[in-house]
Amino acid sequence: MRVGIIGIGHGVFGRRSDATVQELAFEAFRAAIEDAGIERKDIDCSVIGAVPEYHKQRSLAGVVQEYLGLVPKPTWLTEVACASGSAAIRTAWLSIRAGVHDIVAVIGCQKMTEISTPEILALMGRVGEVQWESVFGTTFPGYYAMFAMRHMHEFQTTPEHLAEVAVKNHFYGARNPCALFRKEITRERALASEEVATPLRVFDCCANADGAACLILAREEKALEISKKPVWLAGMGCATASMSVLRRPNLVGLPSAVEAARQAYEMAGVGPGDIKVAEVHDCFTIAELMAYEDLGFCKKGEGGRFIAERRSYIGGSVAVNVDGGLKAKGHPIGATGVSMTCEIARQLRGEVPPDRLVPGADIGLTHNVGGIGQYCFVQVLKRE
Amino acid sequence: MRVGIIGIGHGVFGRRSDATVQELAFEAFRAAIEDAGIERKDIDCSVIGAVPEYHKQRSLAGVVQEYLGLVPKPTWLTEVACASGSAAIRTAWLSIRAGVHDIVAVIGCQKMTEISTPEILALMGRVGEVQWESVFGTTFPGYYAMFAMRHMHEFQTTPEHLAEVAVKNHFYGARNPCALFRKEITRERALASEEVATPLRVFDCCANADGAACLILAREEKALEISKKPVWLAGMGCATASMSVLRRPNLVGLPSAVEAARQAYEMAGVGPGDIKVAEVHDCFTIAELMAYEDLGFCKKGEGGRFIAERRSYIGGSVAVNVDGGLKAKGHPIGATGVSMTCEIARQLRGEVPPDRLVPGADIGLTHNVGGIGQYCFVQVLKRE
Repeated sequence: MRVGIIGIGHGVFGRRSDATVQELAFEAFRAAIEDAGIERKDIDCSVIGAVPEYHKQRSLAGVVQEYLGLVPKPTWLTEVACASGSAAIRTAWLSIRAGVHDIVAVIGCQKMTEISTPEILALMGRVGEVQWESVFGTTFPGYYAMFAMRHMHEFQTTPEHLAEVAVKNHFYGARNPCALFRKEITRERALASEEVATPLRVFDCCANADGAACLILAREEKALEISKKPVWLAGMGCATASMSVLRRPNLVGLPSAVEAARQAYEMAGVGPGDIKVAEVHDCFTIAELMAYEDLGFCKKGEGGRFIAERRSYIGGSVAVNVDGGLKAKGHPIGATGVSMTCEIARQLRGEVPPDRLVPGADIGLTHNVGGIGQYCFVQVLKRE
Repeated sequence: MRVGIIGIGHGVFGRRSDATVQELAFEAFRAAIEDAGIERKDIDCSVIGAVPEYHKQRSLAGVVQEYLGLVPKPTWLTEVACASGSAAIRTAWLSIRAGVHDIVAVIGCQKMTEISTPEILALMGRVGEVQWESVFGTTFPGYYAMFAMRHMHEFQTTPEHLAEVAVKNHFYGARNPCALFRKEITRERALASEEVATPLRVFDCCANADGAACLILAREEKALEISKKPVWLAGMGCATASMSVLRRPNLVGLPSAVEAARQAYEMAGVGPGDIKVAEVHDCFTIAELMAYEDLGFCKKGEGGRFIAERRSYIGGSVAVNVDGGLKAKGHPIGATGVSMTCEIARQLRGEVPPDRLVPGADIGLTHNVGGIGQYCFVQVLKRE
């Protein structure tokens, strides 16, 4: 049975001191049900993607459920770090495939500016394996800096290659009204920015943001009945890698991404060459280069050349992160996976403004990484 | 398609300073796969039930997945407060019903003694709706004290009724080697214990604990092939109520429990009179009385008489919490739902020691509440 996307809602990402997390969720939810042309009563269940630790409010799913007016329907929250939104989509998809629910709302939402900077730093400082790795100072930029150093060493990837990813994503982010950073940057500016963890500079890193995104999913018959242009979740991959990077086979890619992509391509019956538009998890610029390779858009080690040749721009082999990516759109961790799927669904519907539309896109992909690659979710989407 | 329980594993609940959360998970997981007679490679996916905020380690699902040796298989974590374990069971059940996975490990695990007491108090102080209710001092005992006061006012429920719940659960907890409190208490001792929030006293409250429990679920054909005595997840209910108690229709029951029970009974094709053994969410003694009523074991308001007449003891109408319940077994929040299902499955298999076995039990039930009732999951289990 196919599961279709019939409603898309996306809020503005940024420092949203104007809204609580439930208000952010509502903003996206209202847009999604209006887009679907349904009412709250038509929804059988909701699933919330979020990382609870960043919020003072506990029981986020319960608070959101009440605020959206969905009580007494079922809800639950999924958490797999920065891939929490994609896990929410996956369990919603499972609930429809299982014949248990017909229409499910998936809400990715995250308020990251509610807690204090020391509290955020304390959380961010414990993203790795706490017992054996965090004690050595392996923070997020630290891990991705290791990936970058090794990629440079093995494949002659350069700081310029990394900067080009940021330039592309800011170029498209400037054209996305929901993005946090809506301005273009030059390669020179990126390369002159402050170093965070060698070789990563400020412009190699994505930024925390508040935000929410929502999808309405429906089982095939309902989707065809309700929507003129359903987009199908055609391939759904989910895989893990060890938390400890010490136990990874290498540091130049994410084994979880390779495996999740394999599953998604197989289920959808397509290959990397069929993908016209993709959202990949560019938490750091090196992550986008590794994603090109792990997803099979190019061979391992050729990510630097891929961006240098502008093959991930619109008009290249596959348009990647043409909404700005995590880099320019911002990264409200629980919302990111849902935001990615919203963007691909909009691209496949042809409803993106012309300055960042991928013409004729019929097959798209999302690649959402949790943490340092201990989780990866890959989806292949197809239009009717 | 039926989904069966083929493996059960349960660790010791208590102050487990001897083990990290992943070690607790492993203890239960190893017991479950040994019980099922399968190997790690037979497992397609794992789902973790836990509340992340209590742990220093982040990405719990990833850490547990690595420690159990299940990489690169899929995993995700579900969080719905104290019902997180039941949400994990639900999404695992969905994944099997959906035809996506054949055999799934569900691990409920929680380390609650890892963070400091002030940190725990800060978390526990924010269990309600933070913006509008927590500011008035509504902590967990505060909410359940309101439920108890109102129940006493409307139905002449007495402190003695509440104490009798604690006496029963300690009686059975004393016979459960996995329980935190393994000693019987008298009604007099319970009634003389210190007041926490009028009318609730120390012995009306369950206790935080560390612990883990694990279930191996399989699709029907696999379950029949692997297990001589599968227990079936015959009815699966899940519902919500408003977080704000201000918006509840009354304070003498949980509307989410009534609705979740309705769903579970309907799916299983049974009624409350068919249930021989039940695990209900006795986070406070009043919660067990309300559960008798919400689940239909007796009429609304008759919970006090139900326990006074020992109708929830073995030999009564329905044996309730004969493993000690949250009260005596301890309440490692993410593990609790899985622990409940482990106990019912063991009872239906007839594998519980004679001093707390429910003779001839063929149909059982679990009732797992999240927070102050904003979530409730009810399962009906049947033996082959």
